Amino acid sequence: MSLTVVGSIAFDAVRTPFGARERMLGGSAVHFSLAASFFDAVRVVGPVGDDFGEAEYEVLRGRGVDTEDIEHVAGGRTFFWSGVYGWDLNERDTLDTQLNVFAEFEPKLSAASRACDVLFLANIQPDLQRQVRAQCESARFVALDSMNLWIEVARDSLLAAISEVDCLILNDAELRQLTEEPNLVRAARRIREWGPRVVVAKQGEYGAALVTEEGFFALPAFPLETVVDPTGAGDSFAGGFVGYVAAHPGEPLGHELLCRAMAYGTALASFNVEEFGTERVARLTAVEIAARVAELGRITRFVDKPLALRD
Amino acid sequence: MSLTVVGSIAFDAVRTPFGARERMLGGSAVHFSLAASFFDAVRVVGPVGDDFGEAEYEVLRGRGVDTEDIEHVAGGRTFFWSGVYGWDLNERDTLDTQLNVFAEFEPKLSAASRACDVLFLANIQPDLQRQVRAQCESARFVALDSMNLWIEVARDSLLAAISEVDCLILNDAELRQLTEEPNLVRAARRIREWGPRVVVAKQGEYGAALVTEEGFFALPAFPLETVVDPTGAGDSFAGGFVGYVAAHPGEPLGHELLCRAMAYGTALASFNVEEFGTERVARLTAVEIAARVAELGRITRFVDKPLALRD
Repeated sequence: MSLTVVGSIAFDAVRTPFGARERMLGGSAVHFSLAASFFDAVRVVGPVGDDFGEAEYEVLRGRGVDTEDIEHVAGGRTFFWSGVYGWDLNERDTLDTQLNVFAEFEPKLSAASRACDVLFLANIQPDLQRQVRAQCESARFVALDSMNLWIEVARDSLLAAISEVDCLILNDAELRQLTEEPNLVRAARRIREWGPRVVVAKQGEYGAALVTEEGFFALPAFPLETVVDPTGAGDSFAGGFVGYVAAHPGEPLGHELLCRAMAYGTALASFNVEEFGTERVARLTAVEIAARVAELGRITRFVDKPLALRD
Repeated sequence: MSLTVVGSIAFDAVRTPFGARERMLGGSAVHFSLAASFFDAVRVVGPVGDDFGEAEYEVLRGRGVDTEDIEHVAGGRTFFWSGVYGWDLNERDTLDTQLNVFAEFEPKLSAASRACDVLFLANIQPDLQRQVRAQCESARFVALDSMNLWIEVARDSLLAAISEVDCLILNDAELRQLTEEPNLVRAARRIREWGPRVVVAKQGEYGAALVTEEGFFALPAFPLETVVDPTGAGDSFAGGFVGYVAAHPGEPLGHELLCRAMAYGTALASFNVEEFGTERVARLTAVEIAARVAELGRITRFVDKPLALRD
């Protein structure tokens, strides 16, 4: 089976309290691909410019990601984003955004990418997400991410795109903005009425919540003493979550499987933020992931005992 | 055994998107007492004025709370707080604070209150917390709450008070402010170096985290479709958490017991916010609490299965 992701491939310049990088590999499709590469064969679709070289391809290929559908736009430059994080890493300011080749991006999927079993539509213009969705007719699970920009400037397109996927993965503030519903449980129910069976609310340092027909599930973020660079955490989470689904083609997509997927998403996100950009995930091992998932189980499990409460 | 709480007893005027109340029973010691009353015999210490009448006493006595140490200041008025919550209930503005009899509060504990097995020092001036702490020599577990005001205007007193207790229960933003450490794991470790063996970070709608010598534990808030009034959620959490400890006098205060206590704190907080003020908890039953704790276990548990990751 295989997993296709369509999204941005970028160079990021990031400053956090732990240091800075002037130019490093980033972008939603990259962070997603590396995380998902532990679970399935991943094909990445996105545009790059002349400044995207062998070193960048090698990071992806080093994790077995198929880069055939990375579109090299001759004479162009790769999407560039620059940002600075505040003291507690919960606030960030964008210093510069240069869309470059991403501005004219029209996803072109090879037959192999179209034949994917699972599809992730990373945050791009929602009409493009719909075009891609329509090309992947045999996908048994399609998940979509978006952002506040599209909620504000392309709301109708975004609603149409959401109605055509199985799973919406969004920051909780964006879920509220999109549904105009402050309560997360109600917001998720609204989304599910629009089509997606599965809603995942990303909550940053607080973790993530899952809502399906069978109910609610939540996990905290994995506790870390040092978070170096939160950039790409959400896409790494999605890579672990969607990747886990892709790794189970024979199983019905039930609540219990998705809860396990949440744990893998949480683990992958936690590794991503430990170092700048793709540095940590690029050299991650299966043993490390398994250990962190097991630890996540321990730090969220309580076993109640009978207790006579005073009525 | 018995549990003593010292803190504010108040009338609150609250407006939320779900309605408003002009004058209802509130205050940290009240919310704590009602929640803790399901676990142990509770004695509440705090000042009230002439406007505090039988109806208010009856709410507490109706849950079996001992009100003998509520100090009636003749000619005075009870602490009054008024606030309004925003759209998503995560922001609130204080409209009015009238300290009234609380301004001159000097806790006077009866012999029975001093003989408590467990003590909760709700948010009051830290020097007063220290005075109370010193009077309860036989308490086997003392927990303390505080607020940003005391971090700013009485930091040294607060640090001294913290050094004398077993457990600090604080909002996560206040933990960061107090320790000047943006990372929660590091902040909790710093606090533990100051004395408390146990640190609980309250995270509002995201739940709560626990740090002990044995490690980290976290639970999400219980998911609710309707949150009517968040006032007192933190004190209700503390009442469930500390109350659970008080209900287990024969057990060593280990990590596993405290994880279970977190579940009860989470459950009590979730009931508190379902209606205004003390309305919901005042008529809560043991069966409802047990059901919510069980449900909380279900919505946080995942069972990992062996999976061959692609290394």
